Amino acid sequence: MSKDKKMVKEITPQQEDFSRWYIDVIKKADLMDYSPVRGCIVFKPEGYEIWEMMQKELDSKFKETGHRNAYFPLFIPESFFQKEKEHVEGFNPELPWVTEAAGEQLEERLAIRPTSETMIGHMYSKWIQSYRDLPLLINQWSNVVRWEKRTLPFLRTSEFLWQEGHTAHETEEEAKAETMQMLEIYREFVEDFLSIPVIVGQKTPSEKFAGAVETFSIEAMMKDGKAVQAGTSHYLGTNFSKAFDIQYLNRDNQQQYAYTTSWGVSTRMIGAMIMVHGDDKGLALPPKVAPTQVIVIPIGPAKKREEVTEKCMELMDGLKQAGVRVRMDTSDQSPGWKFNEYEMRGVPIRIELGPRDMEKGQVVLASRISGEKKFIPQEQLNKEVLNMLDDIQKQMYDNAKSFMDSHFSSVETIDEMKAALEKQRGFVLAGWCGSEACEHQVKEETGATSRNIPTVVTEHKGKCLVCEEPAKHTVVFGKSY
Amino acid sequence: MSKDKKMVKEITPQQEDFSRWYIDVIKKADLMDYSPVRGCIVFKPEGYEIWEMMQKELDSKFKETGHRNAYFPLFIPESFFQKEKEHVEGFNPELPWVTEAAGEQLEERLAIRPTSETMIGHMYSKWIQSYRDLPLLINQWSNVVRWEKRTLPFLRTSEFLWQEGHTAHETEEEAKAETMQMLEIYREFVEDFLSIPVIVGQKTPSEKFAGAVETFSIEAMMKDGKAVQAGTSHYLGTNFSKAFDIQYLNRDNQQQYAYTTSWGVSTRMIGAMIMVHGDDKGLALPPKVAPTQVIVIPIGPAKKREEVTEKCMELMDGLKQAGVRVRMDTSDQSPGWKFNEYEMRGVPIRIELGPRDMEKGQVVLASRISGEKKFIPQEQLNKEVLNMLDDIQKQMYDNAKSFMDSHFSSVETIDEMKAALEKQRGFVLAGWCGSEACEHQVKEETGATSRNIPTVVTEHKGKCLVCEEPAKHTVVFGKSY
Repeated sequence: MSKDKKMVKEITPQQEDFSRWYIDVIKKADLMDYSPVRGCIVFKPEGYEIWEMMQKELDSKFKETGHRNAYFPLFIPESFFQKEKEHVEGFNPELPWVTEAAGEQLEERLAIRPTSETMIGHMYSKWIQSYRDLPLLINQWSNVVRWEKRTLPFLRTSEFLWQEGHTAHETEEEAKAETMQMLEIYREFVEDFLSIPVIVGQKTPSEKFAGAVETFSIEAMMKDGKAVQAGTSHYLGTNFSKAFDIQYLNRDNQQQYAYTTSWGVSTRMIGAMIMVHGDDKGLALPPKVAPTQVIVIPIGPAKKREEVTEKCMELMDGLKQAGVRVRMDTSDQSPGWKFNEYEMRGVPIRIELGPRDMEKGQVVLASRISGEKKFIPQEQLNKEVLNMLDDIQKQMYDNAKSFMDSHFSSVETIDEMKAALEKQRGFVLAGWCGSEACEHQVKEETGATSRNIPTVVTEHKGKCLVCEEPAKHTVVFGKSY
Repeated sequence: MSKDKKMVKEITPQQEDFSRWYIDVIKKADLMDYSPVRGCIVFKPEGYEIWEMMQKELDSKFKETGHRNAYFPLFIPESFFQKEKEHVEGFNPELPWVTEAAGEQLEERLAIRPTSETMIGHMYSKWIQSYRDLPLLINQWSNVVRWEKRTLPFLRTSEFLWQEGHTAHETEEEAKAETMQMLEIYREFVEDFLSIPVIVGQKTPSEKFAGAVETFSIEAMMKDGKAVQAGTSHYLGTNFSKAFDIQYLNRDNQQQYAYTTSWGVSTRMIGAMIMVHGDDKGLALPPKVAPTQVIVIPIGPAKKREEVTEKCMELMDGLKQAGVRVRMDTSDQSPGWKFNEYEMRGVPIRIELGPRDMEKGQVVLASRISGEKKFIPQEQLNKEVLNMLDDIQKQMYDNAKSFMDSHFSSVETIDEMKAALEKQRGFVLAGWCGSEACEHQVKEETGATSRNIPTVVTEHKGKCLVCEEPAKHTVVFGKSY
């Protein structure tokens, strides 16, 4: 046990201080460490393995839909940022610059990529000449850097890991279909794989990606009621094609600008998952993303240990063959210590086996989520474990969905919104006239920003909550990370 | 077909100009493109997928031997480089520096990592407190940057992709065993998975990693006789532990410095693989690393196309179920064009199927390496393909081994070495007294550098090839990339 770990105090209860709770959990579960570089964290193995699970699942979904991976340079020449006006305005305040290399001043400063639209736009203009080169469907897994003022591990770090998809198409229709397809892949991934319910919708113009025509997002609600944007998909129209001259000869033998998209999710999903599912015991990992789904804990006196451990090994082998990710803890710590430890680490299922269980031919299964304990005949273990993993995955979604639904207000005026946000944290549905001034006033007065204009709205608002002019959209507002 | 591709001329023959051949092949096979940033390439999907195959195989070998993945920051504070004297001298000339971020000058310059010993040393000093924290076995997949003066796609680029393992141990013995274990994993991977024979050995002090006690390497021979260092494993002793204060309480309750190692392979392996196996037709990919192992080409008149294509689909499904990576080309190009195209792209096996083959219930199998064509009953296809893939994997190794063996000279004096290198390209075995002066003189007079001191030497040399003093080591020399 390292000094570091010993120094971690008990986990602060969520109700007492949610931010402290979050930091306590990610430190105690050994997911990350602070680095000496401001705003950059170290992804420790326990944290990185969660990212590996996410990558594997998403990567297969991207490949199934015809995308291929590539890798573009980390450095972006300063002149590239000047080519798309909104893009440069959006990203300039966050860029780190390389000005010297190998002992010499560079002729042109190089930015560390905050996202790769510009570099990829430049390359696509070389690669795309004819409609036969389209669609071009490429994804990149990489690090990116945005020099953030306020940082929070996983949720907002100066360097983070992500994937960015960049596609080019013949028509607006195809590009829009791609934008929506990737948004749906994200929604499905976040809801099914991470058990996080989301609001799917379109960003307002002031919140869209710098350079996009339309940005769509999925928004998740943390247990403190704040929003995390869990993924975005951008329809870029011909903005970047015009800036980088991505022209192709179309089917009518005419030069035409390609329609492009980009879409990404990042390691901030790790933070969102923790804040949606975690509790005062610590982390809670949905089975599909948990690097360890089942922890086996042998119990009982030393003289019986060998026999019990042998049985545990046998049961583990069976589970592994059934495709379950299972580990055993044979350390000298007490069973009680181990129970707490793996609950804190969020392992979905615990299996206990002691001499008495062996006599009875049974094992004990305990769920991290319901706390339920079951005595199971050993020969039914695989089936019961697979069922319980499915149940936990579903329960975690249902719990998060109930939380979100019960922290959702619907208001007519900005005063009602203030009252709603004071009464309970969460999201607020309201009408909006479409003016930036009204949107800005909401932010000034309530601290909440527009999250998105939901694709599916059960209730349409007639008037803007600020100016009371006719509402153009029904919008979800919320405070955000 | 893009303008870019059309502009690529025929492949220059290897004998005419090996460097031109290399560039022609990687461009024509669409593996990479130059980027606007000096020395940085774009890994296009056809090239990146080779890296993904390599990653998958190596990653599973690392995990099998108890290593876990993590991710450390891209930026390294300048002060970290000052802590290990040899390290700073070795890397300072190649570092790019971030001096400004978000519109402000940084108080301390940040280097872009050329390798992560310093950052990881800093973190390990926090994480390692007791012998119970050891061994610590961590690997990282990442980009790194070394501002190179002369660059060559894949083989030497300013930014490249790699993995770097970093481990800490209680004893010298354990750390040395780890160093050799990882070297052996690399040897096995390069020889078995990439079909590249290598010379395993220790680097001379002047060629070792900056800050290492001992560096071991595997050295491969390209078809122009030059060497590529395909992987390195470093025993770092307590050099970095002392520089970064990685101390732990040992089993006798004493503070002690940990013994560390590091080891890495990079995307330069892609370049080595091309230069070892490629020929005047283009790329040749060993089956184990080939993203596409089999290309299916339907043949015959348009009216029969549907029927033939259907049969091809059926055969492909069978191959996929047998674990073969297979694709079909149903484009309008002629069969002859397709034959050349996939030979150029290095696909190990081509399957042809036409109406006459259908009548006879056969298919045609063609090997990229031997050029052999076989007529096979359709029901034996899976078995024959799996056998042929195995054979090709082995043939490619044997061919490369024959080439290396026949380009290996053994000399007594520097004059003999010059004559040998003039007569034929390749490696030269010679005695060496151990002095840096003699090593330097070899480089000055012949252009060859010491590759390594082979672990297995069939012939021990008595005298140094330069000064004729007693030889301390028998060394492999060669010109290198």
